[in-house]
Amino acid sequence: MSELRHDPLSKRWVIIANERSRRPEDFTDGWEKHVNGGFCPFCPGSEDKTPAEISAVRPEGGSANGPGWTVRVIPNKYPALSIEGTLDRQGVGLYDRMRGVGAHEVVIESPQHALHIGDMDPGALEVVLAQCQERMRDLGRDQRFKYVLLFKNHGAAAGATLAHPHLQIIATPVTPRAISVELDSARAHFHLKERCIFCDMLEQELSARERVVTLDEQFAVLAPYASRFPFELMILPRHHNHAFTEELRGNLTALAKTLRETLARLKSVLRDPPYNFVMHSGPNTETLVRRRHYWDTLPFDFHWHVEILPRLTRVAGFEWGTGFYINPTAPEEAAAFLRDAVI
Amino acid sequence: MSELRHDPLSKRWVIIANERSRRPEDFTDGWEKHVNGGFCPFCPGSEDKTPAEISAVRPEGGSANGPGWTVRVIPNKYPALSIEGTLDRQGVGLYDRMRGVGAHEVVIESPQHALHIGDMDPGALEVVLAQCQERMRDLGRDQRFKYVLLFKNHGAAAGATLAHPHLQIIATPVTPRAISVELDSARAHFHLKERCIFCDMLEQELSARERVVTLDEQFAVLAPYASRFPFELMILPRHHNHAFTEELRGNLTALAKTLRETLARLKSVLRDPPYNFVMHSGPNTETLVRRRHYWDTLPFDFHWHVEILPRLTRVAGFEWGTGFYINPTAPEEAAAFLRDAVI
Repeated sequence: MSELRHDPLSKRWVIIANERSRRPEDFTDGWEKHVNGGFCPFCPGSEDKTPAEISAVRPEGGSANGPGWTVRVIPNKYPALSIEGTLDRQGVGLYDRMRGVGAHEVVIESPQHALHIGDMDPGALEVVLAQCQERMRDLGRDQRFKYVLLFKNHGAAAGATLAHPHLQIIATPVTPRAISVELDSARAHFHLKERCIFCDMLEQELSARERVVTLDEQFAVLAPYASRFPFELMILPRHHNHAFTEELRGNLTALAKTLRETLARLKSVLRDPPYNFVMHSGPNTETLVRRRHYWDTLPFDFHWHVEILPRLTRVAGFEWGTGFYINPTAPEEAAAFLRDAVI
Repeated sequence: MSELRHDPLSKRWVIIANERSRRPEDFTDGWEKHVNGGFCPFCPGSEDKTPAEISAVRPEGGSANGPGWTVRVIPNKYPALSIEGTLDRQGVGLYDRMRGVGAHEVVIESPQHALHIGDMDPGALEVVLAQCQERMRDLGRDQRFKYVLLFKNHGAAAGATLAHPHLQIIATPVTPRAISVELDSARAHFHLKERCIFCDMLEQELSARERVVTLDEQFAVLAPYASRFPFELMILPRHHNHAFTEELRGNLTALAKTLRETLARLKSVLRDPPYNFVMHSGPNTETLVRRRHYWDTLPFDFHWHVEILPRLTRVAGFEWGTGFYINPTAPEEAAAFLRDAVI
């Protein structure tokens, strides 16, 4: 079983994944071999090559683990964290560790092997998002989990090991560092001003306009003021809501439309770039409520959003060493290119 | 001129580098073209193709910007930050900005175009380190700069755009986020215990032994307990010293030996992997003293060290989205492989 370890200097948790253990020769043989190679376990007809499905949508019926699905959720065959067991939290001198307990699921977006989200039917994408939401709600009921993350790797340079379009969900027993920093910032702002920092930021951006890519009644797409990466984007709901799992089904129609259109713009302007899509949402409320830290930790001062990170530049020593990024494309320029995209 | 921008959510500063401005077509043409390509501006004889040198070592004499050097320091031709001007700090609603003032220098390690540090003469490497130290001390005297970073990108996958071996020094007008998190951790530990967290960690590691790669009287090389990356390493002085610039010249002999040997081990075990080398040192004391926050901020609770980050795995959405890393090689295994390396 893998192990979670905490570094007291950087305040970061890492997963030491023993099941995926890699020796020196695994690295020196090159990485690309893992990508593609003919057979695809996510294509219809290969259902028996994946772990048994957790859920699926079969509009015309059909039995589990057979074809006929439009969306299919399965456990990751090589999970970073394992679903069984207790955490066994332990101190190791200055360090902290716990067992690598968590969930790691794969949401196969479509039976089609090479369908970009930007080319998807918005209705089909809405069903995918609803499946994700349902899985995230379900995992949120597990009291061992503090956070449930939805993300996507598109393209080998973004870390995708299988080309067939899929999202991933990871539930973790600790709140990840990047999320807790955002939560702390949002909470400090809220305590001082009794306003949401994201709502304030949205108001500033809608008035400045230069970093707004698209806008409809429900969602804004922004190039963040301090973008780390060229063409980095944020999809932000215009209504205040701390968690994606709390969104009404009706809002997923608008989200699907926005997500599809945003990714189509990126695909058009940057010729199908590799990208990561990461949802930041409030931590697991179920866990918090039951732990009775209710008033202090309920994250109603958070505001869920999606980060889209095109992988166009290499991250080098300066960035790794400092957490300080050099971005060669001003977000105002990126937003202008994307607004003008032909889709 | 480039601009520094602050994100109030992640507390991160970024550099929006307008001089290096890149449009969509710069990304879609591919990145590799920047690497190599015949002509090398860092080779002897091409001194007039670089900006005029800042300093150089010419053991047998010779004039500036001509051949005969063994180490040569030049300004980066495409600097992320510019040396001229004032910071003009400014608020922009929720955000903060200042002008991109700083220094960005290149230390060419050797006249040889393809000399790996692991194959260098230790005496020559010591001279390189002394040059770096001298430049860092000099930049530290500039009251605009809060932090001076020494780092290296080796190999295209680690972000190197020129193959000729070189280090880089960047001086920044803000303390980078990763450094300030470490400083805060070290300071909190010191205030509670009146002991250095790095010294405590070193003691724990020397007694556990399983993550120690090499050890001599002056330096320990460790695979950190919560390593983010396979074969990540830390070079830590065994004596307490907050800043590399405060090291006596005599200690650079031992540092050169350790650095050379560590990189030779990585090269042997992983067949010359791409890597980043990043020095973490106390922030700029000169600036702090003159700003009269002396007692509160003097970083004597810090302990300088070097991070070595081999770039063997791709960083994907999970890591980018959360700051949470999945490492498929336990540091205990990495340390064992490196201890057994044939060099």
